[in-house]
Amino acid sequence: MSIPVINFEEKFAKIKDLHSYKLVAQMNDYHFKLVRMKREFIWHNHPETDEVFIIIDGNMQISLRDEILYLKKGEFVVIPKGVEHKPSSSEECKILLIEPAATINTGNAGGDLTDTKIEWI
Amino acid sequence: MSIPVINFEEKFAKIKDLHSYKLVAQMNDYHFKLVRMKREFIWHNHPETDEVFIIIDGNMQISLRDEILYLKKGEFVVIPKGVEHKPSSSEECKILLIEPAATINTGNAGGDLTDTKIEWI
Repeated sequence: MSIPVINFEEKFAKIKDLHSYKLVAQMNDYHFKLVRMKREFIWHNHPETDEVFIIIDGNMQISLRDEILYLKKGEFVVIPKGVEHKPSSSEECKILLIEPAATINTGNAGGDLTDTKIEWI
Repeated sequence: MSIPVINFEEKFAKIKDLHSYKLVAQMNDYHFKLVRMKREFIWHNHPETDEVFIIIDGNMQISLRDEILYLKKGEFVVIPKGVEHKPSSSEECKILLIEPAATINTGNAGGDLTDTKIEWI
């Protein structure tokens, strides 16, 4: 058996496009996904699961209905299931997402920004 | 509702002792634990679950029965369930562990190094 050591910088160097989610690891039925974000995303929630955002580089904000969370490199947050949130960043932010394998980026909202082609890198 | 933003550096500054696992977040039934390690741990495995090690600072190695994994800051690994492993570090290493809430640090091996008093910080 060979178990890969995953290096964030090396993996991000392989991701050419913004907003293209890439799989880098699986733990039980959870996926570890990387994404380079520079946009204002849409309001949505995940009715079935909590979702983790770990900031690998840059900074971002996550709007909630009653507050705004500001996150920077070296910080993370757990968005509880069912909680409406809207991620955004004005500069590029490199993010590690951890969530069950079946989780859709747009959650309950759906729409054009739904990413259905998540590849392993 | 108030959702905490967790800063690794601030959390590690609160951990006074080596090898004292501290809880900083929960995602569904998974725990996010921090530990400052400087020791050679014991051989063990987790028969029921994969286990994630993310290196926040420093470096460590994880011996497997047929290879040694070398990890440094900005890297992580998923140790599959049932795989015998022995973590160690000669200098202090700051680690984020992700695993199901019921997971015991010594896995199937048990013994004196089992940490049964894991607190939230």
